[in-house]
Amino acid sequence: MSAALIAIDWGTSSARAYWLDARGDIARIASAPLGVQKVPQSGFPAALTALLGEAPDPRVPMIACGMIGSRQGWIEAPYRDCPADAASIASALTIVPGMPMAIVPGLACRDPSGVPDVMRGEETQILGALDAARDRAIRVVVLPGTHSKWAIVRDATIETFATFLTGELFAVLREHSILGRLAAPGDDAMALERGLRCSLEEDAHLAHDLFSARTLALTGELAPEAVGDYLSGLLLGAELAAGRRWLQRQRVPGTSVQLIGDAVLCERYRKAFALAGLDAITGPADAAARGLWRIAQQAKVISV
Amino acid sequence: MSAALIAIDWGTSSARAYWLDARGDIARIASAPLGVQKVPQSGFPAALTALLGEAPDPRVPMIACGMIGSRQGWIEAPYRDCPADAASIASALTIVPGMPMAIVPGLACRDPSGVPDVMRGEETQILGALDAARDRAIRVVVLPGTHSKWAIVRDATIETFATFLTGELFAVLREHSILGRLAAPGDDAMALERGLRCSLEEDAHLAHDLFSARTLALTGELAPEAVGDYLSGLLLGAELAAGRRWLQRQRVPGTSVQLIGDAVLCERYRKAFALAGLDAITGPADAAARGLWRIAQQAKVISV
Repeated sequence: MSAALIAIDWGTSSARAYWLDARGDIARIASAPLGVQKVPQSGFPAALTALLGEAPDPRVPMIACGMIGSRQGWIEAPYRDCPADAASIASALTIVPGMPMAIVPGLACRDPSGVPDVMRGEETQILGALDAARDRAIRVVVLPGTHSKWAIVRDATIETFATFLTGELFAVLREHSILGRLAAPGDDAMALERGLRCSLEEDAHLAHDLFSARTLALTGELAPEAVGDYLSGLLLGAELAAGRRWLQRQRVPGTSVQLIGDAVLCERYRKAFALAGLDAITGPADAAARGLWRIAQQAKVISV
Repeated sequence: MSAALIAIDWGTSSARAYWLDARGDIARIASAPLGVQKVPQSGFPAALTALLGEAPDPRVPMIACGMIGSRQGWIEAPYRDCPADAASIASALTIVPGMPMAIVPGLACRDPSGVPDVMRGEETQILGALDAARDRAIRVVVLPGTHSKWAIVRDATIETFATFLTGELFAVLREHSILGRLAAPGDDAMALERGLRCSLEEDAHLAHDLFSARTLALTGELAPEAVGDYLSGLLLGAELAAGRRWLQRQRVPGTSVQLIGDAVLCERYRKAFALAGLDAITGPADAAARGLWRIAQQAKVISV
């Protein structure tokens, strides 16, 4: 099967390949649990063949984003500093020697104190979402996940961003802390909202509020089946409260937020934003494929 | 060997017995890794004999505090509500059937939103520290640990308190998160101070700032040997910032703080308090034994 471009979103735990036609439309998708963490340093050519289901065609250009460009990936694609747009990212691709495979750099920024922040893969999803957005006034993009990213975009340029460890905190607390030991499997929308409201209070403080997941369970005010969602609400609420303050410090006016990522997680965030009085719309699916197409166009690596 | 009282600080991971003479002075100490988590529900009589090195003498009264009174302990000693002093705690002891062994209740309080908080063992240490304090004006007691406690004490009465998950967050992040994977063993006082300063900033937010332990390591601005202390500084600084705001909301004037607990940990907290502009003095060692003596006196269970 022929394609104008094979675009690969290659992350920590899995990889997804998109065969794009001459108009950038998705003709075929394949995915495999061959994330960077699961492939030995010399194993990427074989992993690519396994992902594609065939040896790569040397006539079809490929482009990949995500942790594949990290030190633990195939080849390091050094971070590019913010502000960055599709053109500046396209001018900084790293080519895998002997192969028509370009790797997208991650982005780095620094806060006013000089503390660095980084992203890899999200910059491509953001560009993909911008590409598709009809409303160019959308300036704030939130990508929920293990390490949630909040990015400020002006004139199709990623100006700066901030990471929140929400997903990872949830996972380690749920699996390894005393809070997780009190939890039983279950969904509880009320408990999620209760946790959210607690963390959105002005005097909230996460390292204290987290303990309430234990005390409420101890007093029987929170069922074991509700502990997980309450904990999730506390962490998500803390991210929202902090993200909102971060936007104020960046002098971004109260605006609507665009969410990109897993549909279920985005819907969870959308509801949480609504509770916090913020509008959020969910961006396009397959934003990574759209972003990779856009960068490849800029870099003129597409075969048409 | 005869004693007026055997006082036992019996926690989650270990137990410590103090033989106290008729004046309440410590005549002998024994400890064993026989914490509540390590003893099966029916195994406490045997664990007590192992801890004491002999079968308990039925003529010598015993009193114990800590997780031994929890649902997972020997016998549940229900929480007593704050405010509570030595007399009200002494009036709520739970007796182990058929044995001269009294168990001290934990304390519970509620914040203005009605969210509960609990402690078990710390109430006894606080009473023990008050007993020894020459300066009765000390009103704020901080007990660093897995679950740090901040307590407000007026007229020898524990009015209210708040828990911070600092120690547990450090442990799970150090052992199970991406932040820990970048860390190598080592001590770095500068990194500790850097983390503290970051979390003491007005615009600090833990779930964001934690990620800087990764990015600073990634950019080489933080050595692998410094990551652990930087992370510890971030968490300790967040506790201090939140604890300080909590005291303001409780309308406790800027006062000096008394630290109780492990000497090395207290010294770490004392330095952190100094950096935050707060005086802290370290309370007496063996505060639990002093507190148990005081409660036993009130309950008139001492054999003299």
